[in-house]
Formats: sequence, structure tokens, C-alpha cells
Amino acid sequence: MSDDQITEVPGVHLPKTKVGLLKINALVDAAETLFSRSGFFDVSVSDICKKAHTAIGTFYIYFESKTDIYRYLVERYKENIRRVLADSISGCRTRREAEREGIKCFIRYAVANPNVYKIIWGSLAVEKQMFEDYYVSFAKSYANMLARAEDELKINDALSTAYMLMGITNFVGLQALFENMTDEQIDRAIDDTVMPILENGMFK
Amino acid sequence: MSDDQITEVPGVHLPKTKVGLLKINALVDAAETLFSRSGFFDVSVSDICKKAHTAIGTFYIYFESKTDIYRYLVERYKENIRRVLADSISGCRTRREAEREGIKCFIRYAVANPNVYKIIWGSLAVEKQMFEDYYVSFAKSYANMLARAEDELKINDALSTAYMLMGITNFVGLQALFENMTDEQIDRAIDDTVMPILENGMFK
Repeated sequence: MSDDQITEVPGVHLPKTKVGLLKINALVDAAETLFSRSGFFDVSVSDICKKAHTAIGTFYIYFESKTDIYRYLVERYKENIRRVLADSISGCRTRREAEREGIKCFIRYAVANPNVYKIIWGSLAVEKQMFEDYYVSFAKSYANMLARAEDELKINDALSTAYMLMGITNFVGLQALFENMTDEQIDRAIDDTVMPILENGMFK
Repeated sequence: MSDDQITEVPGVHLPKTKVGLLKINALVDAAETLFSRSGFFDVSVSDICKKAHTAIGTFYIYFESKTDIYRYLVERYKENIRRVLADSISGCRTRREAEREGIKCFIRYAVANPNVYKIIWGSLAVEKQMFEDYYVSFAKSYANMLARAEDELKINDALSTAYMLMGITNFVGLQALFENMTDEQIDRAIDDTVMPILENGMFK
């Protein structure tokens, strides 16, 4: 996964130069590969530095600990997913259109970046709070979007509805990964199965 | 989590005596505690045996490897969840009643056994196939139940619908865990938010 936007993350000291950016990206990419392959606990800072061809002292310029580079990785996914989703729905004029496009977009993203489940769900073992913060913040933003579309929706609780929709997207995404679905198959699953249920169930 | 039924699992040699059952349960309970706390890779067979007050030789009577005790743990959750779900819906006369009770039951189970997410989702890092087998087998059984209730349902694809429902249950379960919901709050989230969407969306 590449990134073109760097976020502020506790325990992470962001570089101010282009060379620094290249170095931090090399470290984070190496960390992602190793964590996805072997989990968090079996990978050392020294393994990450070796794979990134970086001195250990350089690692500690940017990250206070191994947990903090994991946190950065989760944040990078969060920002990437939000940006990709925001782009995908930017042309949508209704919430139902935005749901359809957003769900398709996330599932395509998950199939193209299968490490997303390993890193995000793996964060539960690294630090429960990291995992919880990720989903709580995602659910709140989602619920706010739903609340703003209340004239299109017949729902009782925007936050529980947001968790429902996140669950649908993540798990149909798992099916797409397991079955190695093409984009056309993903579109068909959403258009023929998911959206009719949501259309009748939550839209006016 | 306790178990009163032992399954056949590859790489696992089940005991035939009561003493053997006590020993294997002590090992598996110790493994669950350690894996939930530190992940898979940082826990050794020796750590598990120490916590279970069991000789290392005894471990290898029952389990061929550390991966196999993890596999057993996932299987034990699968059987426990299936049994608890089957019990919860045994009195239901319609699929809609069964969905309502089954979803509530899983979420209560997840709040009471929060390690379930750590162990099941953590299996993705241990062995992708283990994680995939768990959800593929769960989704197939669920889809079969939905297919048998086709006169109550308006759905196009039972398998994708099963993944949707599993996603809803797992993610509203996350919300319940994060917010430390009581049974009454869980019931309200299902009765007021989840079921109305499903009632209008997928039931005739």
C-alpha cells in the first residue's frame, strides 16, 4: 500500500524533508510486509530495519516503539480507506447511491489490499485500544453521514446502523477475498443481494 | 470458555479417558489465556505447559504443534457458538424469529466471551486457511438455513446474504463490546435497529 498523506499519530515523529519521507515510508512498508506475514510479536524492530535497509537509530527518530509503527500503519490504512471512499462517492447525489458506491469501493479495495484485514483485525492483539479507536472513529463518521441523510432514511439509530453497514461491507468483502471475486462479481453481489435488502430495509 | 464436546481436528489426538480430557482442557484453557494476551507468535509450547502445570511431553501426546492447539481452540469456539446458537433458536417457529434470537444470542455470547474476536480474527495471522475455513463453513451452514426458509424470504443469493448477516452480527457485537452494553441494551439495538431493516429488507 502506498500513501501520499501523512497523519499525526501519537508516538510518531513525522519527517519534515523528502528524504525523511522516503525513509519513513520504507520502514512502514517493510513493517507491513513483516507484520502481515508473521504477526506483530514475532517481528523485531531490528527485522524491520534490516528489511528496509535502515539503521536502527533511524527507526527511533520516527517511532518511539514497535507498537507505534503498528499504530502508524493502522492510521495509514484509515486515511487511505477514507480518501478512497470519499473519492468513490464524491459524484453521488443521494445516500443510496453513496452506499452502493462506497460498499463496492471498500470491497474492491480489500480484494486489492488483502493485508487490510490482517493489519486492522491484527491490531486487536497488539493493543485493544488501537483496534477500538479505529472502529469507533470510523463508526462515528459513518453515523454522522447517515444522520445528515435522515430524509432519505428510515432508521432508528444511526450509530448501530453504521456498525451494521460496516459489518456487511467487511464480511461481503471476506467472501470476495475467499472466492477471489472479480470487480464484476463484486458489483453483482452488491447490486443483486446487498442493495435490495438495504433499499427496502433502510431507505424511504 | 468451557467445553463439553470434543471435535475431531487435524493435528489433534483426542484423549479417550477422563484424566486425558482434564489434561487437554487445562492445556487449551492455558493456551487461550496466553494467546489472547500476547498473540500466537510470542507464546511458546513451553509457556502453555508451564501455565497448565503439564509436562511438555504430554502436550505432544495431544497436539502435533502449537498451530494445532490454536486450530483446536478455533474449532472449540465454532462448536460452542453453533451449539449456543442452535439452543437459542430451537423454540423459534419462523426464520425471522430465529434471526432475531440468533443475532441477540451471538452478541451476548461475544460480550460474555470477548476473547472470541481475538482468537477467531487472530487466526488470520496464524494460518490464513484456518480463518477462511472457519468463515466458509459457518457461511455455508447459514446459507443452507436461509435456503430452507425461502418461502419467508425475498433474497437473491443465500450465501452473500449469510455473509451480510454474519457481518451485521459481528459488528453490532463489536459495538456492544466497546460500549459494554447490557443484555437489555443489546436487545434494544436488535429490536429497534437491526430487525426492522432486515424485516423490510429480506423478509416477505
